Amino acid sequence: MSSRLPVAVLGATGSVGQRFVQLLDQHPLFEVVALTSSDRRSGQPYGESCRWVLTDPMPEWAKTIRLSPTTPEDLHIPLVFSALPADIAREVEPQFAQAGTMVCSNASSYRREADIPILLPEVNADHARLVEIQRRKRGWRGGIVTNPNCTSTGMTVVLKALLDSFGVQKVFAVSMQAISGAGYPGVPSMDILDNVIPYIGGEEEKVETEPLKMLGALQHDTIQPASFVISAHTNRVAVSDGHTVCLSIELVKKASLDEIAQVLQTYQAPTESQNLPSAPHPPIILRDEADRPQPRLDRMSGKGMSTVVGRLRKDPIYDIKMVVLSHNTIRGAAGGSIYNAELLRSMGFI
Amino acid sequence: MSSRLPVAVLGATGSVGQRFVQLLDQHPLFEVVALTSSDRRSGQPYGESCRWVLTDPMPEWAKTIRLSPTTPEDLHIPLVFSALPADIAREVEPQFAQAGTMVCSNASSYRREADIPILLPEVNADHARLVEIQRRKRGWRGGIVTNPNCTSTGMTVVLKALLDSFGVQKVFAVSMQAISGAGYPGVPSMDILDNVIPYIGGEEEKVETEPLKMLGALQHDTIQPASFVISAHTNRVAVSDGHTVCLSIELVKKASLDEIAQVLQTYQAPTESQNLPSAPHPPIILRDEADRPQPRLDRMSGKGMSTVVGRLRKDPIYDIKMVVLSHNTIRGAAGGSIYNAELLRSMGFI
Amino acid sequence: MSSRLPVAVLGATGSVGQRFVQLLDQHPLFEVVALTSSDRRSGQPYGESCRWVLTDPMPEWAKTIRLSPTTPEDLHIPLVFSALPADIAREVEPQFAQAGTMVCSNASSYRREADIPILLPEVNADHARLVEIQRRKRGWRGGIVTNPNCTSTGMTVVLKALLDSFGVQKVFAVSMQAISGAGYPGVPSMDILDNVIPYIGGEEEKVETEPLKMLGALQHDTIQPASFVISAHTNRVAVSDGHTVCLSIELVKKASLDEIAQVLQTYQAPTESQNLPSAPHPPIILRDEADRPQPRLDRMSGKGMSTVVGRLRKDPIYDIKMVVLSHNTIRGAAGGSIYNAELLRSMGFI
Amino acid sequence: MSSRLPVAVLGATGSVGQRFVQLLDQHPLFEVVALTSSDRRSGQPYGESCRWVLTDPMPEWAKTIRLSPTTPEDLHIPLVFSALPADIAREVEPQFAQAGTMVCSNASSYRREADIPILLPEVNADHARLVEIQRRKRGWRGGIVTNPNCTSTGMTVVLKALLDSFGVQKVFAVSMQAISGAGYPGVPSMDILDNVIPYIGGEEEKVETEPLKMLGALQHDTIQPASFVISAHTNRVAVSDGHTVCLSIELVKKASLDEIAQVLQTYQAPTESQNLPSAPHPPIILRDEADRPQPRLDRMSGKGMSTVVGRLRKDPIYDIKMVVLSHNTIRGAAGGSIYNAELLRSMGFI
Repeated sequence: MSSRLPVAVLGATGSVGQRFVQLLDQHPLFEVVALTSSDRRSGQPYGESCRWVLTDPMPEWAKTIRLSPTTPEDLHIPLVFSALPADIAREVEPQFAQAGTMVCSNASSYRREADIPILLPEVNADHARLVEIQRRKRGWRGGIVTNPNCTSTGMTVVLKALLDSFGVQKVFAVSMQAISGAGYPGVPSMDILDNVIPYIGGEEEKVETEPLKMLGALQHDTIQPASFVISAHTNRVAVSDGHTVCLSIELVKKASLDEIAQVLQTYQAPTESQNLPSAPHPPIILRDEADRPQPRLDRMSGKGMSTVVGRLRKDPIYDIKMVVLSHNTIRGAAGGSIYNAELLRSMGFI
Repeated sequence: MSSRLPVAVLGATGSVGQRFVQLLDQHPLFEVVALTSSDRRSGQPYGESCRWVLTDPMPEWAKTIRLSPTTPEDLHIPLVFSALPADIAREVEPQFAQAGTMVCSNASSYRREADIPILLPEVNADHARLVEIQRRKRGWRGGIVTNPNCTSTGMTVVLKALLDSFGVQKVFAVSMQAISGAGYPGVPSMDILDNVIPYIGGEEEKVETEPLKMLGALQHDTIQPASFVISAHTNRVAVSDGHTVCLSIELVKKASLDEIAQVLQTYQAPTESQNLPSAPHPPIILRDEADRPQPRLDRMSGKGMSTVVGRLRKDPIYDIKMVVLSHNTIRGAAGGSIYNAELLRSMGFI
Repeated sequence: MSSRLPVAVLGATGSVGQRFVQLLDQHPLFEVVALTSSDRRSGQPYGESCRWVLTDPMPEWAKTIRLSPTTPEDLHIPLVFSALPADIAREVEPQFAQAGTMVCSNASSYRREADIPILLPEVNADHARLVEIQRRKRGWRGGIVTNPNCTSTGMTVVLKALLDSFGVQKVFAVSMQAISGAGYPGVPSMDILDNVIPYIGGEEEKVETEPLKMLGALQHDTIQPASFVISAHTNRVAVSDGHTVCLSIELVKKASLDEIAQVLQTYQAPTESQNLPSAPHPPIILRDEADRPQPRLDRMSGKGMSTVVGRLRKDPIYDIKMVVLSHNTIRGAAGGSIYNAELLRSMGFI
Repeated sequence: MSSRLPVAVLGATGSVGQRFVQLLDQHPLFEVVALTSSDRRSGQPYGESCRWVLTDPMPEWAKTIRLSPTTPEDLHIPLVFSALPADIAREVEPQFAQAGTMVCSNASSYRREADIPILLPEVNADHARLVEIQRRKRGWRGGIVTNPNCTSTGMTVVLKALLDSFGVQKVFAVSMQAISGAGYPGVPSMDILDNVIPYIGGEEEKVETEPLKMLGALQHDTIQPASFVISAHTNRVAVSDGHTVCLSIELVKKASLDEIAQVLQTYQAPTESQNLPSAPHPPIILRDEADRPQPRLDRMSGKGMSTVVGRLRKDPIYDIKMVVLSHNTIRGAAGGSIYNAELLRSMGFI
């Protein structure tokens, strides 16, 4: 046990913070030694000051950890997972990076910076090298690596597989997103019971841009974004966990449904990402039932880390239609960030 | 009261049948004198044999009507509303048409027949003239007129307004549909609580074809379908009533968002449809809040007959994106069929 | 129109405030001339500053009313409906009463005061005379009258009917309450989707005491509470509107189920309450289906003002069991308060 | 692996049958070698003919098992788990018992028979000896043992602890039950979305009688039921899994809340039940938060086998009130039956 790397979770009392705590329970590489809180609860035991909202119970070891302030001086630690709100993350994460800590962040604050990767190990493990540029240019001894927006995650894995084999020209993406994506207390129940909210602030912009950065090429210290176009509609529905995305995709090179199915099913992560503890096997699960994937039935596939695809069929305008599902607070948030940290560790950045 | 036209509802005990009964309560033109049931419940009072599932209570007059068999000989009536299942409708509706009854049907059985209109009074009132062709070619004294699939309804009104002013080339449509669209018992609760079902049998085909027929031109006794293309994804969500559709639309003639908003807000139904009892005023309600329309808040706009549009914005691939909502069992089923009957009556077909 | 009494709604932007506005639309006796807001939104048009959460649209006249501050000097009005939060109500309502305004309040702040009635027109219309005592003892020219907690409402009507005919000794009451009872934003969706919350702060105490005051006798300027005992469990469930209460009741005088059914069905409000605009006819609807009442199907009975009872049956410990439903934001809040005002007006207190 | 006892699941394609399959995955004592289906699907692979409704995926080994007919001649097996509908169970289960098979049944068909135990290992392990009487009187070589109705399960564990220490006189029990209790397709979504159904056919009778049998004493080959009285109201709510029960309990011997809490927290199962694979430790979890237990957060406590109690407080009529939660398809169905089988095996009945 003592050989595990000591880590902290920043913003550990929120819903994503809780997922970090739950998913890091008995992690083979990382051992949580500190939990921080963004408010004046410092010093209180996590078990008392955190309103736990997950169905899996709070790990025993977490209950007695006393909350720390979210400052590098108080932690001195090689790796932190950040579940901070965007405004606090913007201020605090560079302080950690400066102090020599690697920050694996779920916040959106730095995703658009040229030298900060949005990392998805199955897709762009090579973008991790941007950490070297951060260190060179910013003088950081640590670094910041982000995971993508929860809605972008699944569809980007699928688009990577298609891009490599056929090229991608245009994508229509319409999401039906879970309430847990809005945190806690998040969406008022009166807004979502017997209802759909066809709007999530800032989400469509993220879905239209983040995949292009992730699918871009790292050239001369810069990422050249992928050159296709995405149009997104994002909606909130009465689902606890699991984001469902309907995709219509125009490819560059025409292909049969069988060829496409074959490419999705056999897609492999880059070598350096394949054997990490959080890596889903296979990265993409293709289901052939008429009515799958469904969030309640499929979100926990691969311990919540798989990208589940179904309803692959011809599109009357573009080439293909399909439905993509991934777990938004596991794969699309805490689990994704942990997978990133595993990759960074194996590449020697931590 | 006695001057109202006597009408019957076929298949009156199902959920759409119940909507017919509720919406025909105190109708100024039509008086329900008979209710039929597809099974052996003939002779039983409607109030006892119908498991009423609507929030508005069953009208008093309906409770005592004894169920009739669904046969023209038993009814002898100028107008019937058909809420029959597709297979029974296919067999029975022509018998009524033959016997001199006008059938306003919610069933999909005859929507694809060349001489049977899918009628939407704000859109294609002139298609009602197909009834003349039915009579000429089939020797019917009555006729069959259908209303569109519940998901096609709202989007077709919007597409008509855009087609007239700008032309339409391509449409992506992704629906989030209410459970009432599947009838009763319909969707099992275990399938939809905390879930999305990304599949509704036969629905995508209807959404991709019915609007083209409705938006087509009646020439030489035939409808020439509109020549653009629709790609549809249809999904079931945990909403009681109200279908929400995300649309991305490519126009022929470029237009600003202001011009498009102006066209939607000022759209008028054809003259013959404007002053009928069920006509919504205006046909299209354009909302400018960031997060509307929502089914719970907007489905009852215009007594459930309006098409509500919101989130009109630029699309990065096509010209515009928007969200369209209409009430699936009022506007998209029973209410739409009653509006059709009002039109047929005013045009002299009944 | 001009002969209607001018009224104001205090705290008009919250969810109960909105119900007041909706239910006062075209009210035969009252005309809304002012709407107040508890915050700095004074001067803004209601239509712009209120996030409307009801399915019925905001009345047109309300949209242009500019919000007033919640102070008597700014209003000078004979009647106000208070939808204020308890702490603000505690401070402000006596100021209005002092200034000559009758306050019909939905707040719980003064329900326990000896000279302030919890008024339910079908039950204790005579308690309205406490207003005279308020005026005598407190020197008020107006007065304060409260409506009961939303969960107490329906069960108290039923208990009144039973008390009059058979006497009541003990009552077990277990509620399943709608989310609208917690206001907006109120219950977070993550707390109630696929869940029950078996706790509502302060609610059980109200349900155990308020009915006893309402069912008490007004003697020598004081209410002598009814002498039976109530034990309550209160729960929150995933229902938008409508509180369901399971009751087990021990009577003083034994009675057959038929006798009890007869008493419930024929129960009449006191004479002075019977012909008011909001009076439900009959006050109690007794349903004999095995599975009613249900909130979705029965909450709008009597325009949301009826008490709906079902599942009347023998109890193996006490005498009878039943299920009682009433609409929590209509009958149990705004509608109840309006009914109270109608009573006070007809009795000459306004 | 080969030392595990071969078992079959009868009625394996339904929702409880699926739970048996899932919970028996990698069971240390039992190995599933056959799955039966009540219809003409015999011979089909389970993976193809079963519409799996659980969030945990179907075990790989189950997919290829071909469905058998539900007849003893086809199985020849020492132990079967029965998830059959009551009418089929009534006919088939004795055939298996006759043929030498021990039937651990979730069906209610034989729960009322004098010589067939309703077995709850934490409560009445000694009732397992009724199998000897079955064999003696009926000539069976196997036997039938049932698990209780899902709603009775948790409350009976609690009542056992109280009965032993304080005696129990009267119990009011009001349930809020999950939709999975009705099987699949079960409850139509239109009946439960935004709704409560205050009725479950036959359920109140079971809740009022089964605990008395389980808590009775086995004397001279007969069970003498416990002598207190239970009054039950049973309701269906929009929860996927987990039955919540509000209890008010009158004890024989008065006790403080602390004493009662102590008794619940330290309750131990009979010795023979304590170290079995499915035994929850502790049997009863007492939570002290104001708003627990909640189905979404607590149903999986102890892998779904624990009884979770909260809101222990004084009752104004009886002695105490509390809320009890247990997982209805794990503890209250398949998991409970497996725990029974483990007990029967350890006692030598299998």
